[in-house]
Amino acid sequence: MTDTLLSSATREVTIGHDRPFVVIGERINPTGRKALAAEMVAGDYDRVVADALAQVEAGATVLDVNAGIPLADEPAILAEAVRRVQAVVDVPLSIDSSVVAALESGLAAYDGKALVNSVTGEEDRLESVLPLVARHGAAVVAITNDENGIDEDPDVRFEVARRIVQRAADHGIAAADVVVDPLVMPIGAVATAGRQVVTLVRRLRDELGVNTTCGASNIAFGLPHRPGINAAFLAMSIGAGLSSAITNPLEAQVREAVMAADVLTGNDAHCARWIAQHRSPEDAAVRRGGRRRAARAG
Amino acid sequence: MTDTLLSSATREVTIGHDRPFVVIGERINPTGRKALAAEMVAGDYDRVVADALAQVEAGATVLDVNAGIPLADEPAILAEAVRRVQAVVDVPLSIDSSVVAALESGLAAYDGKALVNSVTGEEDRLESVLPLVARHGAAVVAITNDENGIDEDPDVRFEVARRIVQRAADHGIAAADVVVDPLVMPIGAVATAGRQVVTLVRRLRDELGVNTTCGASNIAFGLPHRPGINAAFLAMSIGAGLSSAITNPLEAQVREAVMAADVLTGNDAHCARWIAQHRSPEDAAVRRGGRRRAARAG
Repeated sequence: MTDTLLSSATREVTIGHDRPFVVIGERINPTGRKALAAEMVAGDYDRVVADALAQVEAGATVLDVNAGIPLADEPAILAEAVRRVQAVVDVPLSIDSSVVAALESGLAAYDGKALVNSVTGEEDRLESVLPLVARHGAAVVAITNDENGIDEDPDVRFEVARRIVQRAADHGIAAADVVVDPLVMPIGAVATAGRQVVTLVRRLRDELGVNTTCGASNIAFGLPHRPGINAAFLAMSIGAGLSSAITNPLEAQVREAVMAADVLTGNDAHCARWIAQHRSPEDAAVRRGGRRRAARAG
Repeated sequence: MTDTLLSSATREVTIGHDRPFVVIGERINPTGRKALAAEMVAGDYDRVVADALAQVEAGATVLDVNAGIPLADEPAILAEAVRRVQAVVDVPLSIDSSVVAALESGLAAYDGKALVNSVTGEEDRLESVLPLVARHGAAVVAITNDENGIDEDPDVRFEVARRIVQRAADHGIAAADVVVDPLVMPIGAVATAGRQVVTLVRRLRDELGVNTTCGASNIAFGLPHRPGINAAFLAMSIGAGLSSAITNPLEAQVREAVMAADVLTGNDAHCARWIAQHRSPEDAAVRRGGRRRAARAG
């Protein structure tokens, strides 16, 4: 199956169908985080560094870095954020911007093979982002919308993905370096959003042979108790073949769902990670108590 | 899509691909529950009644009733358990035994259209159970093993399912009344067990057009923190098309995964059940606190 290799200066991480699921930490993003945005503009990266450390500690094996702040000097801030994050963690980075100049400066500041987030099927994006990805030998997230917007029909989005993969090949970028985002819409607004992702992820894996990622947290937008929806969505999508997601590993329920899904796909060999996680002395005591209670309840 | 109608004297429940997932409560089963077994043999059904009430309260819409106790008079005990359960809850029942005489007496005691649990692809089971199912106008769980045991290849199990559906038709039982169990093996012993279920459930839905069920809790046998595995397994399998499962609704994590999966398949219309569940005044206060903390963390 397809392997997408990413790297930092010292570490390699592979996204692949027969690999443990890759959690791309989403937290380093000032969108909707006013305090973080103000700090980044002021040159204070303490929270960026703290978010990087916490997410890696919580199991993220790639970190997304975004500096999309209105009216700010995004290329300079993104490059500095990339430098600060690289200085404290060794995981590969996803360099995330809708501004090509910011992608360019982020990539220039990065040492390794990055994931560029993202290109779409829009003509001007294809022609501005793909050359950059090729020049830096990076991988790229391909989002399945084009000039016509986001189609609700997964088959149309599949064709957009196919076109991006072909265009990437024209630029010398292998299909293995195109990680397709099927686009996750909020289930509260689009009742078929979950089924669309399941259908599309399966076709992308089986027919196009590419790896996939998505902004998983979008699915629960506007609903109460979002982690419960996110956890089930990740398990469901991983079962259909999703190989990575941009999500929040600090959320315990999300983390557990991903670990359990790795067990279920056979990508946690001998269930070793699951067993280690749940075999702490404290946890064992809780389980013994549970068995005693169960025995009494009989 | 296929609908499997079940009924009690006063209530109908439909298993179907475009319906909310049907949780068949597994608790009324003396296997591994010594106290319960002893009580049932002694004619004490208090715990059976309590388990029935608790499971329905927790969201089970069908209850499995099993009286498999070595050396006991299983036909008499199963019939009595069916009567006691029917007297206190109005959900349809799944009458569960490997003893044909017990299925017969359980069905005789039951008022409604039951689910008979189960027939396999073994010749003697087909010829003893299917006539009983036909005579009582019941539905039946079809387990995908035969004289050769359980094959690890899902394609072989699919062919067993197809054969049972054909044989049921010979007895006048519609395919809609055959609910196929793809057979869930413990993931700790069989690393492909999860992928097998995902593959098989999808084929059973798309190619054979039948509804599906399974003993979901088997997947986590022998592993620590089983509810975490069970929850992810249910979300994953429901995404692949599983339409019911025999599981434990008293387990909060299982219950939540099923509710979230119904949201994600679009079978919780307007997310109404999810929102109602998480919009209690107490829960809203917790969420407000969460938002305040998030705002401070900003």
